Amino acid sequence: MPFFDAAAGAPLHPAGRAALLAALDDGWADPAKLYGPGRTARLLLDASREAAAEVLGVRPDEVRFTPSGGAAVHWGIQGGLDARKRTGRQLPGLAVSAVEHSSVLHTAHAHEADGGPLATVPVDGLGRVDLDAWRAAVSVGGTALACLQSANHEVGTVQPVAEAAEACAAAGVPLLVDAAQSAGRTAVPEGWSLLAASARKWGGPAGVGLLVVRRRVRFREALPGWQRGDVPGGLNLPAVVAAVAALRAVHEEAAEEDVRLSALVDRIRTRVPKLLPDARLLGDPRDRLPHLVTFSVPYVDGEVLLNALDRAGYAVSSGSSCTSDTLTPSHVLAAMGAFTGGNVRVSLPRGTTSEEVDGFLAVLPGAVASARAEGGSATASPSEGGRLTLNTLGLRCPIPVTELARHIGDVPVGGVVAVQTDDDVAAIDIPAWAHTAGHLYLGQEDGPGTAVTHLVRRG
Amino acid sequence: MPFFDAAAGAPLHPAGRAALLAALDDGWADPAKLYGPGRTARLLLDASREAAAEVLGVRPDEVRFTPSGGAAVHWGIQGGLDARKRTGRQLPGLAVSAVEHSSVLHTAHAHEADGGPLATVPVDGLGRVDLDAWRAAVSVGGTALACLQSANHEVGTVQPVAEAAEACAAAGVPLLVDAAQSAGRTAVPEGWSLLAASARKWGGPAGVGLLVVRRRVRFREALPGWQRGDVPGGLNLPAVVAAVAALRAVHEEAAEEDVRLSALVDRIRTRVPKLLPDARLLGDPRDRLPHLVTFSVPYVDGEVLLNALDRAGYAVSSGSSCTSDTLTPSHVLAAMGAFTGGNVRVSLPRGTTSEEVDGFLAVLPGAVASARAEGGSATASPSEGGRLTLNTLGLRCPIPVTELARHIGDVPVGGVVAVQTDDDVAAIDIPAWAHTAGHLYLGQEDGPGTAVTHLVRRG
Repeated sequence: MPFFDAAAGAPLHPAGRAALLAALDDGWADPAKLYGPGRTARLLLDASREAAAEVLGVRPDEVRFTPSGGAAVHWGIQGGLDARKRTGRQLPGLAVSAVEHSSVLHTAHAHEADGGPLATVPVDGLGRVDLDAWRAAVSVGGTALACLQSANHEVGTVQPVAEAAEACAAAGVPLLVDAAQSAGRTAVPEGWSLLAASARKWGGPAGVGLLVVRRRVRFREALPGWQRGDVPGGLNLPAVVAAVAALRAVHEEAAEEDVRLSALVDRIRTRVPKLLPDARLLGDPRDRLPHLVTFSVPYVDGEVLLNALDRAGYAVSSGSSCTSDTLTPSHVLAAMGAFTGGNVRVSLPRGTTSEEVDGFLAVLPGAVASARAEGGSATASPSEGGRLTLNTLGLRCPIPVTELARHIGDVPVGGVVAVQTDDDVAAIDIPAWAHTAGHLYLGQEDGPGTAVTHLVRRG
Repeated sequence: MPFFDAAAGAPLHPAGRAALLAALDDGWADPAKLYGPGRTARLLLDASREAAAEVLGVRPDEVRFTPSGGAAVHWGIQGGLDARKRTGRQLPGLAVSAVEHSSVLHTAHAHEADGGPLATVPVDGLGRVDLDAWRAAVSVGGTALACLQSANHEVGTVQPVAEAAEACAAAGVPLLVDAAQSAGRTAVPEGWSLLAASARKWGGPAGVGLLVVRRRVRFREALPGWQRGDVPGGLNLPAVVAAVAALRAVHEEAAEEDVRLSALVDRIRTRVPKLLPDARLLGDPRDRLPHLVTFSVPYVDGEVLLNALDRAGYAVSSGSSCTSDTLTPSHVLAAMGAFTGGNVRVSLPRGTTSEEVDGFLAVLPGAVASARAEGGSATASPSEGGRLTLNTLGLRCPIPVTELARHIGDVPVGGVVAVQTDDDVAAIDIPAWAHTAGHLYLGQEDGPGTAVTHLVRRG
């Protein structure tokens, strides 16, 4: 089954698998122990740290291994902020882009809930951070840390890290780069202070993250009693060894493989608008990750579409278009103003063939048609007062929204569409959709029966 | 090389290794994903959770997998305390035994540093928690959580968990049991609310911990945005599958293997006092872990002895007798009043043979003699005023302390030993040793030269 969700977690690289098997024999003991098996494990750990540092262009003693990419992000942010915390003073400030991974945003929101200042910097329609707003945010007094991803995990847009780092340097604010999507593939521009990454994204095993803390960066260990360095006891050394072996291999293959995968992504970007005329390609078409493309398909739920593609033999990622289900990925699309339907993220693992991509493109239109049929549709009836009424009673999220989107063009600008629904979630989704699509949500009326009717004026 | 440090981390059980290899093929994808490989991974995860729950005698939805035993302890304590935190009120109280694992004590000390009440309950000379003091501690108003290990990791003494749980129930305080040393081997008595364990201790891979939160226990997720359940994204599923396969296998073998290993431990407990007349066996001789024994050898540094045994072909664990080096294991021995020299912890992995144990006992006296010779010794000279002066200039920790211990009997009760040293660490070690050994530390004098002289009156 072609697997096109490398951005979530690529299959283990063969170099990683070979290293894992060897390390099960030689690296099972605790590297902190002084006896023979411990010393062997320590040698493996040291060699892994040096190899990872070499790929990343940093010093070995700046690299620490964590139990996941999420943990690296969490401890990186917490350690950067805690180093600037002063008893009895306002908590230090944090600035993040609006399209960071949820691990960054969750940590940021926890900081805000504790009373810490948080600036969320907007992005443009391609998902690229607004540099003027970024400069303003990091210049605010008391800001102690800024976070920017190297490239967006949902739409592939590469962020202007060099310019953002320059602004941070000018303001004296350390920059944490979440390099989860690019580590191993492409180098992060200079100027950052902390860097987080996740092994499973580059073809290493799950359960290994990397946190790089450059020397001279003020940093406080985020967990009590944990010394500078890796997680004691919790380090799965065979997995770390496998992760670094995969990192080296991916890094060596990157120049060639990135060009090849990028051409396949270009093919998808060219063909999808022809196959699905109402689909919308998301993210920057040029300044993007080589292996990732996302498009949005109207009038269909992403999850239903994912299942249809799964039945056709292709594993892709999709965010639900129900805002209430999950923070990811809708917060990215919402920040881009691109909240328009079910989205499909295709991220190609190493070795993806031209034939696999063509096969995917061949089944895509049928899968979309099948998903749309499966979703059900509204009964549309013009009612008194010139407004169009859509009966979506009995249909679940996101059908009320997608039917609204499909029919809004049936009324003139200024006209009203009334959506009858008995799905509570519509009370969140319909106003959110109306706002991002440029229409006006007028409110809701009770009825028919125990249902409610949401009113939207076409903008 | 016979490996006698199972308590730190046993080699991967063959059943775990086989499961790991299979799960690398079938369990590499994210179990949260809806496509084929994700569903396969989810089936493996569900089956692992059910199997772990069965071994532990709990419900599957009470079991969560964490990146390490330390993380399970940390999040268990934090989640238990946070559930009782109230804005604007005094932080909830925590009670722990004095001989908990450092992961418990570090978390407890962080709680105390934040202003939270902490009660540390003393133990007797065998390392068993004082139940009267325990009852008093958990009855203090505002106490929200109590932590007791199932058995001590350093000396093997089994804690009276059933009685401690009864006291907790009477006081309405949830009990967290750190079952790191016993999980898989022996069941924990009923009555606990939270349970933490570490896969590497039972023969699973490193990097997998277990946290069980019983239903109806008030608990708040300790990490922002993490739902009830496992660590999202960070879960190394092949490692989890391997951990649970090892747990099942160990559990099935336990009845037979525990009897066999316990007999080997009894042999060590019988033979060591004959081989090393000045050694002292630590911990409860009967109510103990089946596979673990610790003894203390005077006038020698544990680390030097460990190295001597390593050269003789045996991997054991040892705590340094330098208090400044590490919290572990000296806090356990100090709490027991057994801070008397280098200690050797022998913990036998499954399959340890009678011949291996005999081989260890055969090399032990030679290793101790070699370690003592290597350590160097003081020049003792009676000086004016009737006090005995020990010149340990140029000798590193713990020689100043061990030489003091060796010579204190050379002066009458009330007499003074003066230790000349140029090792700064002695300023911590000598008062600590004097206190635990029942002597009186009188203070230090400058000289000779840039060195200092510590004065101890024999008690």
